[in-house]
Amino acid sequence: MAGNTFGTLFKLTTFGESHGEAIGGIIDGCPAGLKIDYNAITAEMQRRKPGQSAIVTQRKEPDTVAFYSGIFEGTTTGTPIGFIIKNTNQKSKDYTHIKDTYRPSHADYTYDKKYGIRDYRGGGRSSARETACRVVAGAIAKQLIKEINITAYVSSVGTLELDKHYSELNFSEIENNLVRTADTSMAKQMEAYIKEIRKEGNTVGGTITCVIQNMPTGLGEPVFDKLHAQLGKAMLSINAVKGFEYGSGFAGTKMKGSEHNDLFNENGSTKTNLSGGVQGGISNGEDIYCNIAFKPVATIMQKQQTITKDGELTTMQGKGRHDPCVVPRAVPIVEAMAALVIADFWLLNKLSKL
Amino acid sequence: MAGNTFGTLFKLTTFGESHGEAIGGIIDGCPAGLKIDYNAITAEMQRRKPGQSAIVTQRKEPDTVAFYSGIFEGTTTGTPIGFIIKNTNQKSKDYTHIKDTYRPSHADYTYDKKYGIRDYRGGGRSSARETACRVVAGAIAKQLIKEINITAYVSSVGTLELDKHYSELNFSEIENNLVRTADTSMAKQMEAYIKEIRKEGNTVGGTITCVIQNMPTGLGEPVFDKLHAQLGKAMLSINAVKGFEYGSGFAGTKMKGSEHNDLFNENGSTKTNLSGGVQGGISNGEDIYCNIAFKPVATIMQKQQTITKDGELTTMQGKGRHDPCVVPRAVPIVEAMAALVIADFWLLNKLSKL
Amino acid sequence: MAGNTFGTLFKLTTFGESHGEAIGGIIDGCPAGLKIDYNAITAEMQRRKPGQSAIVTQRKEPDTVAFYSGIFEGTTTGTPIGFIIKNTNQKSKDYTHIKDTYRPSHADYTYDKKYGIRDYRGGGRSSARETACRVVAGAIAKQLIKEINITAYVSSVGTLELDKHYSELNFSEIENNLVRTADTSMAKQMEAYIKEIRKEGNTVGGTITCVIQNMPTGLGEPVFDKLHAQLGKAMLSINAVKGFEYGSGFAGTKMKGSEHNDLFNENGSTKTNLSGGVQGGISNGEDIYCNIAFKPVATIMQKQQTITKDGELTTMQGKGRHDPCVVPRAVPIVEAMAALVIADFWLLNKLSKL
Amino acid sequence: MAGNTFGTLFKLTTFGESHGEAIGGIIDGCPAGLKIDYNAITAEMQRRKPGQSAIVTQRKEPDTVAFYSGIFEGTTTGTPIGFIIKNTNQKSKDYTHIKDTYRPSHADYTYDKKYGIRDYRGGGRSSARETACRVVAGAIAKQLIKEINITAYVSSVGTLELDKHYSELNFSEIENNLVRTADTSMAKQMEAYIKEIRKEGNTVGGTITCVIQNMPTGLGEPVFDKLHAQLGKAMLSINAVKGFEYGSGFAGTKMKGSEHNDLFNENGSTKTNLSGGVQGGISNGEDIYCNIAFKPVATIMQKQQTITKDGELTTMQGKGRHDPCVVPRAVPIVEAMAALVIADFWLLNKLSKL
Repeated sequence: MAGNTFGTLFKLTTFGESHGEAIGGIIDGCPAGLKIDYNAITAEMQRRKPGQSAIVTQRKEPDTVAFYSGIFEGTTTGTPIGFIIKNTNQKSKDYTHIKDTYRPSHADYTYDKKYGIRDYRGGGRSSARETACRVVAGAIAKQLIKEINITAYVSSVGTLELDKHYSELNFSEIENNLVRTADTSMAKQMEAYIKEIRKEGNTVGGTITCVIQNMPTGLGEPVFDKLHAQLGKAMLSINAVKGFEYGSGFAGTKMKGSEHNDLFNENGSTKTNLSGGVQGGISNGEDIYCNIAFKPVATIMQKQQTITKDGELTTMQGKGRHDPCVVPRAVPIVEAMAALVIADFWLLNKLSKL
Repeated sequence: MAGNTFGTLFKLTTFGESHGEAIGGIIDGCPAGLKIDYNAITAEMQRRKPGQSAIVTQRKEPDTVAFYSGIFEGTTTGTPIGFIIKNTNQKSKDYTHIKDTYRPSHADYTYDKKYGIRDYRGGGRSSARETACRVVAGAIAKQLIKEINITAYVSSVGTLELDKHYSELNFSEIENNLVRTADTSMAKQMEAYIKEIRKEGNTVGGTITCVIQNMPTGLGEPVFDKLHAQLGKAMLSINAVKGFEYGSGFAGTKMKGSEHNDLFNENGSTKTNLSGGVQGGISNGEDIYCNIAFKPVATIMQKQQTITKDGELTTMQGKGRHDPCVVPRAVPIVEAMAALVIADFWLLNKLSKL
Repeated sequence: MAGNTFGTLFKLTTFGESHGEAIGGIIDGCPAGLKIDYNAITAEMQRRKPGQSAIVTQRKEPDTVAFYSGIFEGTTTGTPIGFIIKNTNQKSKDYTHIKDTYRPSHADYTYDKKYGIRDYRGGGRSSARETACRVVAGAIAKQLIKEINITAYVSSVGTLELDKHYSELNFSEIENNLVRTADTSMAKQMEAYIKEIRKEGNTVGGTITCVIQNMPTGLGEPVFDKLHAQLGKAMLSINAVKGFEYGSGFAGTKMKGSEHNDLFNENGSTKTNLSGGVQGGISNGEDIYCNIAFKPVATIMQKQQTITKDGELTTMQGKGRHDPCVVPRAVPIVEAMAALVIADFWLLNKLSKL
Repeated sequence: MAGNTFGTLFKLTTFGESHGEAIGGIIDGCPAGLKIDYNAITAEMQRRKPGQSAIVTQRKEPDTVAFYSGIFEGTTTGTPIGFIIKNTNQKSKDYTHIKDTYRPSHADYTYDKKYGIRDYRGGGRSSARETACRVVAGAIAKQLIKEINITAYVSSVGTLELDKHYSELNFSEIENNLVRTADTSMAKQMEAYIKEIRKEGNTVGGTITCVIQNMPTGLGEPVFDKLHAQLGKAMLSINAVKGFEYGSGFAGTKMKGSEHNDLFNENGSTKTNLSGGVQGGISNGEDIYCNIAFKPVATIMQKQQTITKDGELTTMQGKGRHDPCVVPRAVPIVEAMAALVIADFWLLNKLSKL
């Protein structure tokens, strides 16, 4: 209800502010008997964590996760998995400049309006720090649905766009470049551009493409909880996301039915998959693919006009260490959210028929 | 769980297949004391219903809604509002051609895979007939949040696009043309194009823009249930939708932070509203605006290759009366879903602080 | 949220007032592929319906249920099952005497306080008429879990108590007497007593025992959603219920651990089953048994002091046709609620382990 | 779904096994602006904790709660409240004797059947250790609804029963005796009896009465989520509970309507309150009172027959430090669960009418 739970059967509930003592969560509904690969969880955390490369924020957080329950001798027991990640970077610094001033395009103003009180030390609950918990849960979800492959990569940074279809790309290149795109030459251009943007004290947006392969048929619930509707919600719930499209997406609106319809092959697969692997909200076994739009990070190292809590005009300038472009670090978050959605529907689908 | 309920406090649960005896729903959580304007409900139903104009399907459904509970002497009582809409158009015709053959880009195949059984008389549960119930509930939701204005209009049909910002348009024109766009001259072009498409036995996609004005601050729940995430899910759950973007959307990914940030005015409003009325998942009082992408309708009057249930290749051609372009009739559905989302958050927000 | 939905996977949502045009409900989450036995549903409805015998209310309601969706050619399709029961007995009579006067121990006063408005024609939503929908859904739930046997019977009427353990009773006698108790000679005493009570214009309470046999192990979710906790909630949600106990119940509080513990047999069954088939909230395969306490019906044919809406003292006397003792007709309702609880846990348990 | 969440608006989700590193929980939905009284939370924890007196288990757990989020400068912020309680008493001892043997009337057998795996070091998730988290959340709920008074006390131990109506008792005596009963002379008898039982290596059951005073009208949702149904579920979810009754309870089944009906006074209060403060599932402003039945603790210091995992007969005898009677320590747990139920309905009721 209050918005801190995701999923219905494989359920993640999270807590924590960016500058509190710890963040954490509870995964409820993971079936018993799943052998947990801790290294795989750590690897996902490493991909998301700050300070990992020259083009992301230089803030340092070790992001070590402690599991407190639900796993016994390395195997899930069916009871809730509670976990904690300590915040090690919340130094007691001077927050006076943001205590009473609203940062443009941040959530300071809206939290104050909604709750009448706000943890003003950084972004509080609205900080992307919260997504670390999603990555933990997503890493476990991936292990639950291990036969399904979820791959995300950066498909654009500003106006630099990968113009190839995902099937033409080599996914093994993604982790070989700092940007996490699937094309080495584009990676270099993007990397250079992000460094330039940082030098300006500016930020830039981008897009991530997510591909889900080796999908079983039947996942997703018709009407309100269509597979792509829940996937869209999952992606739109990530900080800075402004849009979601799957299959033919916005480009599909310009097509005719005769061009857009996916004709069947004899085995039930389709010739074109403009549908993006989902028909009527239910997976048809083809690849699911979608694009997610990220706006430029709001914190810039340039002076901007804003107002104080009392409505007086003032100026402020970002301080500290921030990402010049959010998409490289958002890649594992996108994958985590996809894994949570698919794991949930995968469980639910076991109950579809007698 | 099984996907037929939308909302958490203002909750709609629906049932019904396109060719069953009736469809209907239950609205649970509408506060007591709301005077119901039945004419307003009927008006919304008229906007959605088949057979209303020359550019939509010529199928006839009177779409009369019968309310069975929850309203006493014209006022809601706080108890669930049960309603029924009879299906009058389900003539006993010959369905043999679709019983064992999967229509391309329809949900026939996926329903069979998921459930092992399917009501093959038309689209069954996956038919857009189901959206009539959404319009009923949305019409009541609109009355609950009557100070908030929700307006949707067609912003493109195929490649014909309205290239104006919503603030430059005259919303009073929307209902004065068959396409439901907000520009008279573009309306004529679109109308002509849709007629041409129909003559071809083809269909075409399009987009709808939805604008929510006079918004209070504080609506939306942070983290997973962000206002725009729930709005996106709502829109993506409508038949044929392939994408959703709000505020700057996909175009925002190409911008820099210095261009994209919404600077504050003294009264807390912002100069640009590229954020689209939402910061950190919570409304900031500015207009919310979003675009929704609709693919071309899958049923076309041209012969297409497909397969039978047994995996044998065959051909089929659409029969009967179908929409050549779905967006004109989807406008009230988009508004209804927006109303359901906003009503839900409007109620929930009453509990945000002491 | 607003209280009209029961269950999490096998979910029933109901609507309807006693004197509206119809009541009804939606069952969401019933798996596809269940052959529906309509006669079994009708039979359950007959057991609950008014006017069935000399010791229940003489009000006549045919209680015919119309299914509108979710069942195709006699088999469930996995889509929501919508159903309607028309109210045929809501004659336009004069309700002036109860419009502005609160009936003692009814819900008139609390509905007015909570909602500020009330359908004063009979009990409205608080009427036991609503339980007809539970019986419909329960009848389908029973078919889903058909290997499990759910049997309820009247175990006391006023001070007349069946003093035998359920295992000493012959369940086949239950439907052979009007009271629905499991002992012919006690049935006669109870029947005579109820007739006497009616002649006085009075009412009397009683208890129902419910036994669930042939239970699989593993049903129920630990901690908050323990099998017996959800069963207790289900029973306490039935009109007029004041208490619930299972296994040793209140008598068990007087025992010592050495007497109460259920020692194991070699096959995992237990010697005593004072636990009532549930350990730690999870079924252990032994019979589940519980007692449910019903207060006397509040409507009596005697003059009682009460107040008007304006707080003025007045008197009122029940009119019309009411049950002198509710337990005979509550037997199928108890079974229905038990079936809903067990069906829900039965589905959920399929997801407990890999 | 998986049973570790309680409540719909004021929601508690918990995790943790008795012998893991920590237990904890997340409270989601507490409105912003509540000043937290930490001493009051500590005081409730003290009442529940082991080792507090001569008649409870001598196990020592400091039960210190660490709050990680959702409270800023002593006031709730509207974001989720995450908390942790370290398990300090989980010494690495030898569990071989219970690893492969099922303790009678414990959850060992059912957990193994349901999950196929079990944390055999103590009760794991089924241990009453888990209730410490309920007490934390209940203590905050109490502060949210501070005008409402919730008082529980021991009303029987074995056959020693307090035979007075709650209104004749002096609640200020409850915390002045080790048993937590509301009568000094009975307290002494009960205390002596519990000591005797312990000496036998045995255990005994008992009952707790809970009284909720200064109730507003309108709390509770009709039909399935009746106030007393949810209260019953809450109580039945506490370890060792076998029964729940409210108002006249099981005794009410023996009464006639003319005796049982609560006649109104002019101000809307009632003369008798056999209804127990609830009509039709909604509070009427009168005191709510209920009785909760606790079975004797299953762990006894006597040799009992049981079976191994492989179904072989064996004997076992409880070891270590256990409660001879659970009710003294269950008093704060009962209050906590009542507070969670009432806080939830208190929030929900704010949305009942416009």
